[in-house]
Amino acid sequence: MKDVLQQIETGADRHLAELKEFLRIPSVSSNSSHRKDMERCAEWVKGQFEGIGLERSEIIPTAGHPLVYGEWLGASGKPTLLIYGHYDVQPVDPLDLWESGPFEPSIRDGRIYARGSTDDKGQVLIHIKAVEAHLKAHGKLPVNVKFLIEGEEEVGSDNLDAFIAENGERLRADAVVVSDTAMFDRDLPTITYGLRGIVFFQIDLEGPNSDLHSGSFGGAVANPGGVLARILAAMKDDNGRVTIPGFYDDVAPLSDREREIYRSLPFDEDRYKKELGVEALSGEEGFSTLERVWARPTFEINGLLSGFTGEGAKTVLPARAMAKVSMRLVPDQDPDQIATLFEQHLRALCPPTVQLRLTRMQGGKPCLVPIEHPAVQAGARALEKGFGRAPVFIREGGSIPVVATFSDLLKIPTVLLGFGLPNENAHAPNEHLDLSNFRRGIVSVAHFYDELSRTSL
Amino acid sequence: MKDVLQQIETGADRHLAELKEFLRIPSVSSNSSHRKDMERCAEWVKGQFEGIGLERSEIIPTAGHPLVYGEWLGASGKPTLLIYGHYDVQPVDPLDLWESGPFEPSIRDGRIYARGSTDDKGQVLIHIKAVEAHLKAHGKLPVNVKFLIEGEEEVGSDNLDAFIAENGERLRADAVVVSDTAMFDRDLPTITYGLRGIVFFQIDLEGPNSDLHSGSFGGAVANPGGVLARILAAMKDDNGRVTIPGFYDDVAPLSDREREIYRSLPFDEDRYKKELGVEALSGEEGFSTLERVWARPTFEINGLLSGFTGEGAKTVLPARAMAKVSMRLVPDQDPDQIATLFEQHLRALCPPTVQLRLTRMQGGKPCLVPIEHPAVQAGARALEKGFGRAPVFIREGGSIPVVATFSDLLKIPTVLLGFGLPNENAHAPNEHLDLSNFRRGIVSVAHFYDELSRTSL
Repeated sequence: MKDVLQQIETGADRHLAELKEFLRIPSVSSNSSHRKDMERCAEWVKGQFEGIGLERSEIIPTAGHPLVYGEWLGASGKPTLLIYGHYDVQPVDPLDLWESGPFEPSIRDGRIYARGSTDDKGQVLIHIKAVEAHLKAHGKLPVNVKFLIEGEEEVGSDNLDAFIAENGERLRADAVVVSDTAMFDRDLPTITYGLRGIVFFQIDLEGPNSDLHSGSFGGAVANPGGVLARILAAMKDDNGRVTIPGFYDDVAPLSDREREIYRSLPFDEDRYKKELGVEALSGEEGFSTLERVWARPTFEINGLLSGFTGEGAKTVLPARAMAKVSMRLVPDQDPDQIATLFEQHLRALCPPTVQLRLTRMQGGKPCLVPIEHPAVQAGARALEKGFGRAPVFIREGGSIPVVATFSDLLKIPTVLLGFGLPNENAHAPNEHLDLSNFRRGIVSVAHFYDELSRTSL
Repeated sequence: MKDVLQQIETGADRHLAELKEFLRIPSVSSNSSHRKDMERCAEWVKGQFEGIGLERSEIIPTAGHPLVYGEWLGASGKPTLLIYGHYDVQPVDPLDLWESGPFEPSIRDGRIYARGSTDDKGQVLIHIKAVEAHLKAHGKLPVNVKFLIEGEEEVGSDNLDAFIAENGERLRADAVVVSDTAMFDRDLPTITYGLRGIVFFQIDLEGPNSDLHSGSFGGAVANPGGVLARILAAMKDDNGRVTIPGFYDDVAPLSDREREIYRSLPFDEDRYKKELGVEALSGEEGFSTLERVWARPTFEINGLLSGFTGEGAKTVLPARAMAKVSMRLVPDQDPDQIATLFEQHLRALCPPTVQLRLTRMQGGKPCLVPIEHPAVQAGARALEKGFGRAPVFIREGGSIPVVATFSDLLKIPTVLLGFGLPNENAHAPNEHLDLSNFRRGIVSVAHFYDELSRTSL
């Protein structure tokens, strides 16, 4: 590993320059106006694969944004590792809250600020640079690798499941590694053993066929904004529990052991509140903050729009109201089942005064990966070498639906080695990545490939 | 009156051309980017006053948009009539729902489509053209008139009350006439004897200091959009009654006589629903539709905004949520008192998980004008001459706060002679004015000045 680490050391400036190149491409998958940027970004990733010396690299078109596939299979008799990541990023609005342009990478205080820096371009590049270091040092890798980098993670990976289902042989591997999660805290290497799932909907309510004068009609015609507020408010009770009948039926209860692990983590609720800028936290009664975000399902409002929202006053009774809502799911909730329960509850709550249109937008299963699996343990040893201390095992409240797909379709476990930090503003303005974690990440995953080569899977 | 009516007849094409000119000026008072248009519109009104031969016309600057004042005081010993109207208009969004440009007047099916056509430029021009017809026919008017046309009606008339308070002598009159209301139905001339008041607020809730990833934080951090939905939903009970403590304390109950009058009006609830495009109406239990919009107070949502509202899905936990809300008030509710009760209730409902910022944006008192007043009766006779049938007496759900001001400060009654129709989309896309009512309006108010000259006030 000495030569590999030397390669990582001497390549540091170049790695950073390449990260900036990657981040400059506005690969926003949710907005059709960025289609060309998505193609450019896929080409950029393929160019990296070619540049570092993979044996094969390919852009694979889908019905949506393309996948980028790369492989190096020269480690005969050694395990095969599937490396998954995504090159697409979240939308950037509200744009006015960014201190530097979301696609103009800017380094301040040892962090690089740009959309996609921590989620997930920076973490994808960690793997590319670690593979490159091995190849530069020894002309070969300690394990076989297959890269699968998609462009639709932020919009529900609509075309990925079908691709995986149809390419089981090509993607055959002994384990998957995904770097798209966060460390529990600064300098605390972390393996994430659980993820929440998600179902996402847009609710559109249509009332009168035109915006109305709120004086002439107010009081007699249902206000779609008001109806929406009542429906959304009714989705949770006063104890923060979701009211959808059957919602909690399949929720796996937290074990005493897990609750103990969470309690032992260095979680400072006062610091958490201070960093978020809130006076008080809130959530489901009977659960701690970590339990709430890791192991309990939620109902969240992601967007609201109705009526007049500009400067000043406008006495309008809006014709329409829209909400984007999502539910985070935990094992063993099933997204399709929850979607059905939600729709039934929503339709039951919706009065005849408005027309309801419901659009399901994305979904993904929750999952747990066993801590004891030898690939996970190889990851733990690698992180200890990369960071100088043993990792902690946590869950994550976010969703990486493909992890459940790998488990379901390829029957292999996923190791979640994450190098982000919890407050790096993924999905929000001023997203950034700590550059020391970028460097230690490359070292850690280089070690991971090495550890895995001595692991029986 | 024969010569006057002849003048109105021969001037018809010119009146219409002038109406189009007036409507082409985008005098949106709520948006500071239209300041120049507001000035241009005030100049246009002053130009009319000069053109028709008023003795004096003047643009009066205020802290906001200017007033336009004009007078003709040559009818010695006759009553003096104050003619109030407004040249400002509502904002135009959603722009994509307009079938022709909001400031490109378009005539279709005997109606003129443009923002401000019915509210209130068309109705202001009715008075200007009626005065012009008298002056052209006889070189004099049967009564003294004072025009007061303001530019801030749609944003709460912030500077009008102070002007009236400070100019009691200049504005001294025996009655006010306002044409800014609607007829009960096509071909049914109408005098409005009651108006609702209003208080309008913007509610801003701030949660975390940045938009958050709804997976990583959802369940532990209060969602400002969710908090807003709960607060707004709590403002009304299941019977459609506003829950603000004390809200109904000063509401004057409807008399049996009024309920009878309303029941006798040709109101077709099925047609009303069909025109609005709604399956069902909704409102406060125990009251009919007309009672709800005319004589009962409301709580309405005028705008909602939070989180991501663009195309696609974004799994964000929003940092902020905003609502614009207003309450329509009825006699004898006091806007200041209701504003205080609302703020107390809102603060009691708002949890410590978010910061509340409340901005009061406009307000106005409700009022009733006695049907028996001789000026109102002169109006009734004039409408009968203009339309060929006796008018009905109704209330209106909208607010014209200045009517209460005239009563409070000038101690004079206001006659509400309205020539709009209820479904002319005031405050909404495709606002329009029936051109036959524009013409009959000019005839009616020309008769009104004449009737008033023989009335003892």
